[in-house]
Amino acid sequence: MKRIYMDHSATTPVAPEVLAAMLPYFGEKFGNASSLHRSGREAKEALEDSREKVAALLGARAEEIIFTSGGTESDNLALKGIARKNRKLGKHIITTQIEHPAILETCRALEKEGFEVTYLPVTGEGLVELSTLEASIRPDTILISVMHANNEVGTIQPLEEIGRLAAERDIYLHSDAVQSVGKIPVNVDDLGVDLLSLSAHKLYGPKGVGALYIRKGTKLESIIQGGGHERRLRSGTENISGIVGLARAAELAERDMPREAERLAGLRDRLAELVLGKVKDAWINGTMKKRLPGNLNFGFKYVEGESLLLFLDSKGICVSTGSACSSHKLEPSHVLMSLGLKAEECHGSLRITLGMSNTLDEVEYVAESIVEAVERFRGISALGR
Amino acid sequence: MKRIYMDHSATTPVAPEVLAAMLPYFGEKFGNASSLHRSGREAKEALEDSREKVAALLGARAEEIIFTSGGTESDNLALKGIARKNRKLGKHIITTQIEHPAILETCRALEKEGFEVTYLPVTGEGLVELSTLEASIRPDTILISVMHANNEVGTIQPLEEIGRLAAERDIYLHSDAVQSVGKIPVNVDDLGVDLLSLSAHKLYGPKGVGALYIRKGTKLESIIQGGGHERRLRSGTENISGIVGLARAAELAERDMPREAERLAGLRDRLAELVLGKVKDAWINGTMKKRLPGNLNFGFKYVEGESLLLFLDSKGICVSTGSACSSHKLEPSHVLMSLGLKAEECHGSLRITLGMSNTLDEVEYVAESIVEAVERFRGISALGR
Repeated sequence: MKRIYMDHSATTPVAPEVLAAMLPYFGEKFGNASSLHRSGREAKEALEDSREKVAALLGARAEEIIFTSGGTESDNLALKGIARKNRKLGKHIITTQIEHPAILETCRALEKEGFEVTYLPVTGEGLVELSTLEASIRPDTILISVMHANNEVGTIQPLEEIGRLAAERDIYLHSDAVQSVGKIPVNVDDLGVDLLSLSAHKLYGPKGVGALYIRKGTKLESIIQGGGHERRLRSGTENISGIVGLARAAELAERDMPREAERLAGLRDRLAELVLGKVKDAWINGTMKKRLPGNLNFGFKYVEGESLLLFLDSKGICVSTGSACSSHKLEPSHVLMSLGLKAEECHGSLRITLGMSNTLDEVEYVAESIVEAVERFRGISALGR
Repeated sequence: MKRIYMDHSATTPVAPEVLAAMLPYFGEKFGNASSLHRSGREAKEALEDSREKVAALLGARAEEIIFTSGGTESDNLALKGIARKNRKLGKHIITTQIEHPAILETCRALEKEGFEVTYLPVTGEGLVELSTLEASIRPDTILISVMHANNEVGTIQPLEEIGRLAAERDIYLHSDAVQSVGKIPVNVDDLGVDLLSLSAHKLYGPKGVGALYIRKGTKLESIIQGGGHERRLRSGTENISGIVGLARAAELAERDMPREAERLAGLRDRLAELVLGKVKDAWINGTMKKRLPGNLNFGFKYVEGESLLLFLDSKGICVSTGSACSSHKLEPSHVLMSLGLKAEECHGSLRITLGMSNTLDEVEYVAESIVEAVERFRGISALGR
């Protein structure tokens, strides 16, 4: 059975050009970047060349990029690193209720260390309100962390405005941009962020590698100690093949982004139209105005998202009910709850995230399959009409 | 110029069989192991199959293996995880002066959190003495961390005896086995360890992936929070290709170890004989009796190890003066200082670590080159005789 993958916010395949760039670093160029001999120097060159490429995608300087094992580690390093380093300046952190668990759980860990965290609500559209954020700032606020684009509903936060607000008050601003980097323009100066997390496997790079942008002059404590790699901020032998893969993925994203974003937005809108035109009591969660090009999050009354997912899976279609990270949990999505949905409305959600491989034919087939699935499950459900 | 790589303790090339096992997980099997659909299930199966294979190499159970981004992260998780979880039971930790920086720097970070650390001296042979260890145990000792084999001099610590001692007193025992796993037998029950760190890139696996063995029932705090992967001990989307690579490398190590260990020990002894037979005022640092099969650490009077390294590099030979992680530092090796060497004796050290690719021809050529290098530098040095 042909597989149709529409879960690109969970992960993406490694692009052939990315794998091609990585391959030499497993075999002939396998050196440790800390070694003084030529094998080491070769690795070190690849490392620094990759740093330039990743920086270029973000409009940053190479020395502002630290490589990590992925988005989750980047988020942990940013939040714990800033909080612990600035403990004496204040103990208040502001974030949002719709962050990824990598932020929310890290905030909970910081609460145990004595920090106080405000979790901002969002509007029914899935957006942070500036006035709410402004009202939550305290004299001891040291850090604001607001994701760039949400992983479930794809809504894009007004980071530029938040950046100005944070800068005026001398508060560090971090953004988890794992879902936006490579999909929409991300320029650290335009956004006004001091720290920004990204992950390779969300943009056709390999799993197990990510980066943290740290604005020059920003001081933070490391969370992994050892040989002092990455300017003493992240010890551990650098994953050169992974880092080279991330860098190549960044180059491809920069090259393809404008065209691909437009194409995906077109497919996305067509899919929404096809499904909402045929299914009653269905809607899109989160605003359609400020949204990632490839993201749709359907809400269906009287049906379980997980049943839809499994039915679609039986037809070779890979989609999600929410984020992959919480797919094995039974609680309703914390993101959809924050948007004001009732628990039963959250359970009828289906996240479809389009990517490079998807075509209009696939979109039409998936739309038909979703319509078929919803009708079938509503027909046999006591809740169905 | 043909390159002769004799720095296998810094890193190893990915074995062709390992790369072959990894390749499908970049492309067609790229799923996120947390996804419920078939792409996700495929990834999850690979993850759990890999866990079994890594466990098998250590004589452990699959559920006792947690995948990390490498040896440094494993060491950080083990030490911080146990210390923070057991803070109420005691604040004393015992380790050795010759540990890798991933242990030493983590201990220093824990000291800042209020823990007290005893750094045990070692004998001139590079071994921990049981009586010294025993005498350092306090009623509030919660953790002992002793490396299995040293990364600079290759000496193998008496872990079995240390394990018995720790077990009698109900103290957790961790071992950084990054240098020993895959080279000599490592069985967690024989060694009596509760936690054990390993890294894929030291055993012909990829960089950026490692594992921590955690004996069943051992509780620890995570250091990276998020989606709750790896039994809530290590959040972040699993690096499936890397993990599959580590698992394949573990299988190959198990298959090849007896034969390869004997071969490398033979090459090592021949190299020592050839060099020490021709160069005066030269010796081997660390005991030859309990030592990794591929490790030699020469000491030469009246010459700088770094000059030797660069001369050998110009002939295509890759070796090291100490560990790769500290190769850019100017201080003398903390390991050699602990063995009782004077600073100037440490500076004349050369670490040669043999591996799969090395042959007797190479060993003979390298021996000649070392002899030539030492003679040349002693001839032009004011210190030379």
